[in-house]
Amino acid sequence: MNEFELIARLTRNLPSHPSVIAGPGDDCAVLDLGLPGRYLLFKTDAVVEGVHFLPETPAEKAGHKALARCLSDIAAMAGTPHSAVITLAAPAGYATARLEGFYAGLSETARRYEVAIVGGETTTNPERFLVSVAMVGTAPRDRWVSRTGAKPGDALFVTGELGGSILGKHLDFAPRLAEAQWLAEHFPLHAMIDLSDGLAGDLRHLMQAAGVGAELLARAIPISRAARLLAREPADAHPDRPAKRSPLQAALADGEDFELLFSLPAAEAVRLSDAWRSRFPKERLSCIGRITPEPGLRLRDHRGAVTLEAHGYTHFGDAGTDAGPG
Amino acid sequence: MNEFELIARLTRNLPSHPSVIAGPGDDCAVLDLGLPGRYLLFKTDAVVEGVHFLPETPAEKAGHKALARCLSDIAAMAGTPHSAVITLAAPAGYATARLEGFYAGLSETARRYEVAIVGGETTTNPERFLVSVAMVGTAPRDRWVSRTGAKPGDALFVTGELGGSILGKHLDFAPRLAEAQWLAEHFPLHAMIDLSDGLAGDLRHLMQAAGVGAELLARAIPISRAARLLAREPADAHPDRPAKRSPLQAALADGEDFELLFSLPAAEAVRLSDAWRSRFPKERLSCIGRITPEPGLRLRDHRGAVTLEAHGYTHFGDAGTDAGPG
Repeated sequence: MNEFELIARLTRNLPSHPSVIAGPGDDCAVLDLGLPGRYLLFKTDAVVEGVHFLPETPAEKAGHKALARCLSDIAAMAGTPHSAVITLAAPAGYATARLEGFYAGLSETARRYEVAIVGGETTTNPERFLVSVAMVGTAPRDRWVSRTGAKPGDALFVTGELGGSILGKHLDFAPRLAEAQWLAEHFPLHAMIDLSDGLAGDLRHLMQAAGVGAELLARAIPISRAARLLAREPADAHPDRPAKRSPLQAALADGEDFELLFSLPAAEAVRLSDAWRSRFPKERLSCIGRITPEPGLRLRDHRGAVTLEAHGYTHFGDAGTDAGPG
Repeated sequence: MNEFELIARLTRNLPSHPSVIAGPGDDCAVLDLGLPGRYLLFKTDAVVEGVHFLPETPAEKAGHKALARCLSDIAAMAGTPHSAVITLAAPAGYATARLEGFYAGLSETARRYEVAIVGGETTTNPERFLVSVAMVGTAPRDRWVSRTGAKPGDALFVTGELGGSILGKHLDFAPRLAEAQWLAEHFPLHAMIDLSDGLAGDLRHLMQAAGVGAELLARAIPISRAARLLAREPADAHPDRPAKRSPLQAALADGEDFELLFSLPAAEAVRLSDAWRSRFPKERLSCIGRITPEPGLRLRDHRGAVTLEAHGYTHFGDAGTDAGPG
């Protein structure tokens, strides 16, 4: 059983409530608590030493990553983060300086994105350092974006560049909060997700949520410099990674890009591309394909279209193929 | 450095926000998000296999405990729980049946207290099963109760019976939500906390938060049957426990009672005792002492008053003296 199958089993028949607008299965839960004009967003995520960062990783970067992962999920709903609480689990005698470094990195990122750290819990995890972050935020009632609304004919866009996050980006990425809020304010987004399991994997989540398929244009996928560098390294340079892959394969399958993948009506594509260039001139936005009515994920290049089998990583019970450690 | 000193260091200088009414250091964070008439409560807590429950503990009970610990913190603010998100960390290949049992216990408790489970995250913790729960709830703006308001002369009350939780109560306690809401609705509570670190330890938190002292009446402290049973066992029956103690010592120092400790004006004490008996005839409520202007914690018995040195457990880096495993 992989992570997704396990989650599906565990989340069957969970208690819900009429005020739950979106529950398990989206980037954040969406709750109607009676806040005028807004919904509450609620999310949890965790980082584990040796899985998402290494014992050698500077603690400040690990702290940044712990908070920024949640921020990326708030971004995926076009939300605004508000505050976070931290569960810190560590072995007895774990280096205090490292805990303080972790908190320093986490706090700096919290300050940058105006997130209050409002509480925490420390407990013993005898073998390793693990931190779980829970975050609340808000989103306008009429302008939050779920994973579920992709429609056949939609254009598919992705921010930034993909692949090779293990070489460093997974520790210092900037969650796309401003971009997501701007997108939702100016364009009728149908569906959005942040890329944590790899483009192909997360696109499958969008497809499954809406019962649609997708076709990607190989030439349009923005491949990162890191993905190209990785492809040039000897096959055994990263023994914890799967078999050597091309830069395109890395961009399709590598986890922890933390970019935004979204769909909107194709008629908006040109207006979006123009407006984006004015508003975010230094950041890339790529139209990488379209949503199709028939199911399945296809990749089109100059030779034609091929169907992609399952890509992306499963985290649970499969630590070695997580994008971290790096 | 113990847990409390470490937390004090880590939580110095955390980013805050004008909408944070109460931050780190209270049972829950209290946030003003603009909800009409109410504040948002936000809390995280965790349970770890081998620390808070054992590999032999029925998974359903561990699931109950994970959620009920957070519910007890919501109760301590006289709040109403709303929803929770779950971070589940487990080794690769951890028994699926045990994960499902954990979720079943957690869900049953969530249903009983009308809490929606709205999201989760699974990740790898290679050596052991660990679950962090984050919860949001609400409380009336004019009727939430902090840890900080105890005043000299206040009467001190505690619900239920104390000590010996390790014999079973720590796995199946009922968080005192209805009791706390009723108390806050009908009485001018000055301060409240839920007992997780032991009566003496948590009373010290109340004292420190308000800069006051307290005097307990030994005869008035409600000692549980479990605490008396434990005192009759041979000294080596629980090798993971500190030295053998009297039932009174257990009631003062054992962790994880999950009862409510609160203070209110002494003039309300008789009215409270009478009203409680009518409203909760099967549950004990004890007036156990008073808040004093001079600092320090004293215990008075028929021989006079003695000052108590630090009691209660520190969880961090000191797993063996946690109330769990049991």
